[in-house]
Amino acid sequence: TDICGLPQGAAAVARGIARLFRRNQIWVAPEIALPNGRRADLMGLDSRGAIVIVEIKVSRADLLGDAKWPEYLDHCDRFYWGLPPSLDAALVQSPAFLPDTTGLIIADAYDAEIVRPAATRPLAPARRKSETARLACLALRRLNLLHDPAAPGEPY
Amino acid sequence: TDICGLPQGAAAVARGIARLFRRNQIWVAPEIALPNGRRADLMGLDSRGAIVIVEIKVSRADLLGDAKWPEYLDHCDRFYWGLPPSLDAALVQSPAFLPDTTGLIIADAYDAEIVRPAATRPLAPARRKSETARLACLALRRLNLLHDPAAPGEPY
Repeated sequence: TDICGLPQGAAAVARGIARLFRRNQIWVAPEIALPNGRRADLMGLDSRGAIVIVEIKVSRADLLGDAKWPEYLDHCDRFYWGLPPSLDAALVQSPAFLPDTTGLIIADAYDAEIVRPAATRPLAPARRKSETARLACLALRRLNLLHDPAAPGEPY
Repeated sequence: TDICGLPQGAAAVARGIARLFRRNQIWVAPEIALPNGRRADLMGLDSRGAIVIVEIKVSRADLLGDAKWPEYLDHCDRFYWGLPPSLDAALVQSPAFLPDTTGLIIADAYDAEIVRPAATRPLAPARRKSETARLACLALRRLNLLHDPAAPGEPY
């Protein structure tokens, strides 16, 4: 795992996707804890305030073994799969992966491409509001702790 | 100026205030640009989603010469003055500094104390929503660029 907590392969995919996104004014961070106990591999906001989640899968077993990913749909306006070029993208064309709803991004460590756009399924405004505030606090917290690390024993 | 863009004295006060705040689940970042063209010295969110701005003044001239600070009130639910112990705190008791509205925090580089609480003047929900999303994007952007700096010429 790297410093962001993602495994190496997933971290590479995450970086490439974040580069694609930032060129399009979408800002994401890795490993965002959700209120339901899961953690989004990448989560953030576009310039209109829409919430985006990317679930990164770097192996076939990882992709096919995740039965709980639909829970992410309740926390974003758009959902993408993020896959490395080495993984067969046809896997996420299967109905189980809701190809009419979920987008697909193929990425390496350096760049990424949206192979299938994600449908927009707008969150309820109250949910988007709470998710946005949570994202803001999480990102502000990480920034603050990078610039001024907590002393040992401080519970941040 | 330090890496955050704040002058040394102000950066010290900012760090102390951010430490006080994080103990209270308030997360702020320095130098946050506002839509009106001004920059808040510290701006962030508390755990209930209320927006907090701190304007740091480290000299008497700096404090007395700022006629535009009331513009900040339109972008936060609570506003504080942040002063070092060396500056006479009685200055911000004057009616010009709206002592019934603005709070006062005295801080050094290591810690801070709220000497006068800030009144809560709730923003209109639409304004709080847009400010929260802006804060989230700014913080996510700074985090992203720290972890993966832009190449020379990239316009982030």
